[in-house]
Amino acid sequence: MSNAQILASFAANLEFEQIPKDVVARTEDLFLDWFGSALAGRGARPVETIRKLAQDFGPHYGPCEVLISRRTTSPLFAAMINGAASHFAEQDDLHNSSVLHPATVVFPAAWAAAQALGRSGKEFIAASVAGYEVGIRVGEFLGRSHYKIFHTTGTVGTIAAAAAVGKLLRLSGEQMVNAFGSAGTQAAGLWEFLKDAADSKQLHTAKAAANGLLAAYLAADGFTGAKDIFEGGKGMGAGMSTQTHPEKLVDALGTRWALSETSFKFHASCRHTHPATDALLQVIRRERIVPDDIETVVTHVHQAAIDVLGPVTDPQTVHQAKFSMGTVLAIAAEFGHAGVREFDAHYRESRISHFCKKVSMVLDREVDTAYPSRWIGKVTVQTKDGRTFAGRVDDPKGDPGNTLTRAELEHKALTLGLYGNAATEDELKHAIASIWAIGDALVVPKLLPDSKLETHHG
Amino acid sequence: MSNAQILASFAANLEFEQIPKDVVARTEDLFLDWFGSALAGRGARPVETIRKLAQDFGPHYGPCEVLISRRTTSPLFAAMINGAASHFAEQDDLHNSSVLHPATVVFPAAWAAAQALGRSGKEFIAASVAGYEVGIRVGEFLGRSHYKIFHTTGTVGTIAAAAAVGKLLRLSGEQMVNAFGSAGTQAAGLWEFLKDAADSKQLHTAKAAANGLLAAYLAADGFTGAKDIFEGGKGMGAGMSTQTHPEKLVDALGTRWALSETSFKFHASCRHTHPATDALLQVIRRERIVPDDIETVVTHVHQAAIDVLGPVTDPQTVHQAKFSMGTVLAIAAEFGHAGVREFDAHYRESRISHFCKKVSMVLDREVDTAYPSRWIGKVTVQTKDGRTFAGRVDDPKGDPGNTLTRAELEHKALTLGLYGNAATEDELKHAIASIWAIGDALVVPKLLPDSKLETHHG
Repeated sequence: MSNAQILASFAANLEFEQIPKDVVARTEDLFLDWFGSALAGRGARPVETIRKLAQDFGPHYGPCEVLISRRTTSPLFAAMINGAASHFAEQDDLHNSSVLHPATVVFPAAWAAAQALGRSGKEFIAASVAGYEVGIRVGEFLGRSHYKIFHTTGTVGTIAAAAAVGKLLRLSGEQMVNAFGSAGTQAAGLWEFLKDAADSKQLHTAKAAANGLLAAYLAADGFTGAKDIFEGGKGMGAGMSTQTHPEKLVDALGTRWALSETSFKFHASCRHTHPATDALLQVIRRERIVPDDIETVVTHVHQAAIDVLGPVTDPQTVHQAKFSMGTVLAIAAEFGHAGVREFDAHYRESRISHFCKKVSMVLDREVDTAYPSRWIGKVTVQTKDGRTFAGRVDDPKGDPGNTLTRAELEHKALTLGLYGNAATEDELKHAIASIWAIGDALVVPKLLPDSKLETHHG
Repeated sequence: MSNAQILASFAANLEFEQIPKDVVARTEDLFLDWFGSALAGRGARPVETIRKLAQDFGPHYGPCEVLISRRTTSPLFAAMINGAASHFAEQDDLHNSSVLHPATVVFPAAWAAAQALGRSGKEFIAASVAGYEVGIRVGEFLGRSHYKIFHTTGTVGTIAAAAAVGKLLRLSGEQMVNAFGSAGTQAAGLWEFLKDAADSKQLHTAKAAANGLLAAYLAADGFTGAKDIFEGGKGMGAGMSTQTHPEKLVDALGTRWALSETSFKFHASCRHTHPATDALLQVIRRERIVPDDIETVVTHVHQAAIDVLGPVTDPQTVHQAKFSMGTVLAIAAEFGHAGVREFDAHYRESRISHFCKKVSMVLDREVDTAYPSRWIGKVTVQTKDGRTFAGRVDDPKGDPGNTLTRAELEHKALTLGLYGNAATEDELKHAIASIWAIGDALVVPKLLPDSKLETHHG
């Protein structure tokens, strides 16, 4: 059997009962975290543009909920719109070594399919786990050379979504191979948009979720795809990576639960900024200094941080601000936390841009070698009165070794839901309770009641 | 201005009145040729699978016709289904030097948008020309290294469709740049499926047309994309080609009409088989020999022919047969023409597979150097009685130097329409008349009346 067939067979045959209890619980955690992120995208211009077009192009009714509009539609468009919404606030989860944001591509597709097919909560959880396990391994297979040009969450996300939806469609192993083939040949997403602060990121996650769902539904109807879309001579590895890692495709299937390695995002910024942010906060707290005391901050980073954040020298939008190392550190230094509200309210302020200019990035060999398996944060802080402090974190807040509690996750989801003006506090609490009980649902419920909220904010 | 901006500006500002009369007439020819190809896809399993899913996921009504079902839907799904249908029979057009099949991605998108927006025939023609001119240049820019792994019609087709639909949406030059950015970051399609005879080809054209249309509609609503999706450091060229040709992106805009360089397909097989097929037919007719007289046929080909056709050593499906040099030559030698009906009826016959084994491919330096600007056909035929004949064609039938007449195009469209059981002969003749008069239509019409034909054939 090829690695593609082994991986497909694993996904097709995974049963809820095989999944360790702590992995099931972590899946619920990740699902709640995704729900909050999806609501936080409500009202954002690129998200609402995709929602509006999807509503024009798609049916105005159906079995699947669109979280940001409280409308329903077909699974394709629910996956598309919820996928667009959940990556906007930069608060959705990240798997380190694959550099994949799994939630924003797996859950929109799996939730839409589970609702369309009337599946149980346990089946939904097993499907989500399959999506994470497959997606993370394909991301590791394509590796760092892929991520230099391609937005892995867009490309690999298509496969992850197909695996999850394929599971809900109860595909055979062979059908799952076909789903992977049809997903991989639709895989797309280039980083080029980033330097223009263009809107493509929302399109990438929207389309990854929708395209992956389409691939799985096609496979269920007998549509065939390439048998070896990963390693074949004209497949994803050949076309979209200069150094693949074939052994990663089937790494410890059924014993390593890669889902549990996924990190929650504590700060509302690009994940590449988090390690240095936490290291700076460590110095500020330990040395009891304030931003005004600081002369310079040197962040010691991995190459991908320089590649992704380097072009953002003068952030003009709140989205760019989240990709500006200096701005993120400035906001965190000022408020102790770089959350969605802190960015919206303060990213343009002169004290923030003043601090931003104090921050530089240098490539660090230790950090770069550890990446992407570990995201080490190292900073050197120079004070105006001539002192030098080193900060270091080995597990940024939200990483598996320093994870968020259920109380912290509930607080984050509530904050994001209210930020998006997407639901009342009561509605959110009801949804949170539904999510904690999802494993007992015979048929997955709706998370939010239908209603007609007005669209707001930007 | 960047090349992307120059190209976008050309597309946005192109007026019907600037387009030479012979280019307008050729556009009508290509549109008719596309119409026949779309109808020929009716009933084919992969096409019908996409149609069925698109109908499940999309609205069951709308302003746009689905040619193979006589239903209507939204522009996204009309583009998707008509795009899936028109590349199946391997009878749609090809532009040589870009190795792009423009019709199957430009017309499904442009026709759907023109119907949705109620545009005139002249506007539809100008939009189609913009789609061809842009798509061909982007295909030439990405070049042969791209085509080795990627199905250019899938990838570049997204941009071509976006250009055509962007024109119908009357985008500004700046909006057109955004449409290109959103199209390019969705561009996908890998050749890996070919060796498994999988169904991806229909998915590629379906999605290219739909994704390009989506990109243009997004741009009209203010959604932004990368400004330099072609040449940027993390753009299409960087990620999907090892040798780009930047000068091609803006090659002789407004004076070179690349649309007129597009070839019609005379045989119903992969275009890489056509030059050798015509060269063999030349020998057979000139020397008055029959297939049984032939001991061996050596085809002298370009490298891409070996790359694409080489893996197909033992065709199991009619689709694979169209990618088997030996099978195509066998059918052409037997029937004088390798058409859709000849393939369906005879590709498995023992006399065909017997002749197939006589055919080999060798790389030819002259042919390879001329490719892809010119597709020279050269064969060496050895007869059983020991004679050796050389055949050579510089312009395979259907190429601009050896094009099809309007009578031949009508005959081809009628054949394909009846083959697909997609319409009656009267309906087809009415549609052909509509197409010849398209330039005078104040609002584009429907090509076929609504009705409920039963689905058939495979």
